[in-house]
Amino acid sequence: MNKKIIIYLMGWILIMEAAFMLLPLAIALIYREISGLWFLAVLITCGAVGRLCTYKKPENMVFFAKEGFVSVALSWIALSFFGALPLYLSGEIPRFENALFEVVSGFTTTGASILSDVESLPRCMIMWRSFTHWIGGMGVLVFILSILPLAGGYNMYIMKAESPGPSVGKLVPKVKSTAKILYKIYLVMTVLQFFLLFAGGMTAFDSLAISFSTAGTGGFGIKNNSMAFYDSYYLQGVVTVFMIMFGVNFHSYYLLLSRNPMAGLKSEEVRTYLGVIGVSILFITLDLRNDFENIFIAFHHAAFQVGSIITSTGYFTVDFNLWPEFSKAILVVLMFTGACAGSTGGGIKISRVLILLKAVRKELQSMIHPRSIKVLKLDGKPVEHNVLRSINTFMGAYVVIFTLTFLVVSLDNFDFMTNFTVAAASLNNIGPGLGEAGPVQNFSGFSPLSKYAMMFAMLAGRLEIFPMLLLFSPSTWKNG
Amino acid sequence: MNKKIIIYLMGWILIMEAAFMLLPLAIALIYREISGLWFLAVLITCGAVGRLCTYKKPENMVFFAKEGFVSVALSWIALSFFGALPLYLSGEIPRFENALFEVVSGFTTTGASILSDVESLPRCMIMWRSFTHWIGGMGVLVFILSILPLAGGYNMYIMKAESPGPSVGKLVPKVKSTAKILYKIYLVMTVLQFFLLFAGGMTAFDSLAISFSTAGTGGFGIKNNSMAFYDSYYLQGVVTVFMIMFGVNFHSYYLLLSRNPMAGLKSEEVRTYLGVIGVSILFITLDLRNDFENIFIAFHHAAFQVGSIITSTGYFTVDFNLWPEFSKAILVVLMFTGACAGSTGGGIKISRVLILLKAVRKELQSMIHPRSIKVLKLDGKPVEHNVLRSINTFMGAYVVIFTLTFLVVSLDNFDFMTNFTVAAASLNNIGPGLGEAGPVQNFSGFSPLSKYAMMFAMLAGRLEIFPMLLLFSPSTWKNG
Repeated sequence: MNKKIIIYLMGWILIMEAAFMLLPLAIALIYREISGLWFLAVLITCGAVGRLCTYKKPENMVFFAKEGFVSVALSWIALSFFGALPLYLSGEIPRFENALFEVVSGFTTTGASILSDVESLPRCMIMWRSFTHWIGGMGVLVFILSILPLAGGYNMYIMKAESPGPSVGKLVPKVKSTAKILYKIYLVMTVLQFFLLFAGGMTAFDSLAISFSTAGTGGFGIKNNSMAFYDSYYLQGVVTVFMIMFGVNFHSYYLLLSRNPMAGLKSEEVRTYLGVIGVSILFITLDLRNDFENIFIAFHHAAFQVGSIITSTGYFTVDFNLWPEFSKAILVVLMFTGACAGSTGGGIKISRVLILLKAVRKELQSMIHPRSIKVLKLDGKPVEHNVLRSINTFMGAYVVIFTLTFLVVSLDNFDFMTNFTVAAASLNNIGPGLGEAGPVQNFSGFSPLSKYAMMFAMLAGRLEIFPMLLLFSPSTWKNG
Repeated sequence: MNKKIIIYLMGWILIMEAAFMLLPLAIALIYREISGLWFLAVLITCGAVGRLCTYKKPENMVFFAKEGFVSVALSWIALSFFGALPLYLSGEIPRFENALFEVVSGFTTTGASILSDVESLPRCMIMWRSFTHWIGGMGVLVFILSILPLAGGYNMYIMKAESPGPSVGKLVPKVKSTAKILYKIYLVMTVLQFFLLFAGGMTAFDSLAISFSTAGTGGFGIKNNSMAFYDSYYLQGVVTVFMIMFGVNFHSYYLLLSRNPMAGLKSEEVRTYLGVIGVSILFITLDLRNDFENIFIAFHHAAFQVGSIITSTGYFTVDFNLWPEFSKAILVVLMFTGACAGSTGGGIKISRVLILLKAVRKELQSMIHPRSIKVLKLDGKPVEHNVLRSINTFMGAYVVIFTLTFLVVSLDNFDFMTNFTVAAASLNNIGPGLGEAGPVQNFSGFSPLSKYAMMFAMLAGRLEIFPMLLLFSPSTWKNG
């Protein structure tokens, strides 16, 4: 294993993080918050450690899948460690595992919080939480690779590990240029949402924090009652639309804007994604029609919650834990399907679900017509055997981590629904679950063991599972 | 599609069922139960319809996968329909969907009951319920094929559809002979259990009914409090051991008894199965150590319940719905893993789980050592690509049916744990779930829609999913 390049890359990650901390520092200066000085202290430490690691460029810049996956896993752990320090050292979150939980939940765009009173935090800390969602949404290593002059064509492995979805398509021949295009789309959409919210009467601070959180499909509320605070159909509606938009495969936007706009509209994944959203909103609206003043309000909240859960954001406008079981059951199913690959959303991803369903249909057809040979296609192109195999092993590993998280969390002896949805909400990076982990609850009541299990699941979910498994697999660290 | 042969086969199934009804009829005569005459009426009808269907042997006796799967699915539905008639016509179960539910639950060896007071049933009906478990445990079509003179080597398709597990190995060159050997083992073990229970002081009637139900890993209690009624460590212990034994791959018994005893002991699936049982009992015993007088009693009940759930039997000695969440979580996981392939147990099956886990490990290894080529092996033999593919599509279809069942049952607005475990208990043929579907509850409170969804799931689970999907797939019925 090329350990030098892993250290080198992690050094750059820390330098990046130091740069990211300028934002909360600026907020602290604007609002004159003394505790914001901790960001300065950590920024300096973080930058210094980073500089130390990147002082000497390794001679051998080549890396393979193993190095790529291990770099990604370690980078995200290092990011979270340093990111948690300001919250912990300032005493705003007195227990370290809680501060770490909050920041892991932030970077992985989960949005599960251990805070019962978010509003009592200094504003610089609130902004930092929301900003971690934005940083984590698109991934940091891919960003670094898009600006760092690294040799070799092996950057693909990092992009594979950090980008959600079964297959990473390059939009343009170079990984670097693809990454740059995706970041541009991400930035433009975030800015657009900011202005739409600001125009609707939200403060600049709130608009920025909420746009960050929506863009990363994270879901940290900056008010104790999340989006219910903004009692405006316009503001909640804007967030609904943007949550759903950030769950769309970014490649489709690129295609829409460029040489081939029709291809962007034809994506089977995006169509299925929108179809699932439509059907879910319809059923939930019908199920809730008597719980709200009129069916339009039921539709409004159904749409918000469906958008929030399928994209793994986790915002709420009402306490959906009190909804009828059928509506809750739909939301639980959406927790697993997740959004499109190549978006910032979590979960299994629609394209994986779609390919698995097509494989089942193909098997059925081959039983009915044993002599016909069918090819599994997505968007008119055959799905390679390798892609199908990696989806299947992904699902296997996914179920293993889900089961282990569920078992560990059960030790806390909360009810079944809580334990099940905590595992689902962590691994799929949703945020809130149901029951004791419901939207109006928080995660402070869980044991440290459960919290560490959830952190592992969040990181595994965000990094498409294998990097975290490789990191803890002994044979990764053997020579050879 | 060769419809004639499907009708012909179903005819034989009905003749068989008529013969099976001689047992409850005999019980009715012994205990002088008037309502037992309904068995006579149905027996005659059933036999007559069967005779009509088999009157003319079809000229073309060849069938393919499609015919095999459709025959199996239709046969099990026909079996259940006629099997439910005595319960319904006698008025013992006044609603037809309830009678059908009870008998589908019987034949599929699920053991979920809609009866709140089993003991008030006439004895002939109680025996019929338990007997359906025994009939369903090993499958009826395979039995018919083992005695019917059918041409062609295509019987394999039926065996594949009706035998639990990912791959059907032939013990001896002919399917017919393999089936005969398996039935012999089944019969001998059932008789053995009968004598061991009888020797422990159980009545002959109870010993027979409980042996039938254990052998089929069904789990219909013949007392309102299931096996808790037999307050004897010996009797409950015998049932524990036999439940676990009926969950072992029968091929291992064959190998143990014949030319290659070492191969029987070496089966990776059986070892994993016993390992999972051991670890589960250990954890649950520790979790329950303070809930019982001493740790041995905790062990006794933990062992009974683990054996009951992993083999999908569903008996209980205590109300495990009241156990701590960690123990319940383990039981829920065992509901899914299921027992060995080639046993009478339900669930996903240990061999499938084992192959999936090995596929994940192989993927990890190929990431660490990209140049090494690993082969996925089970019992030292490479697992063919086809087997892995069919396991993966099985899992896909499994998740689809699970999700749909869960969503439909949620409409009844019971709690999440109930809905989730009802879907799990139906599809995996366990019987009781948790919550409102817990061991001391019954299924009469669910809506007819939920009951039909559960029946579909039970049949799909027992028949390894694809036959039921094919039956309801429109293209199966198109020409060609």
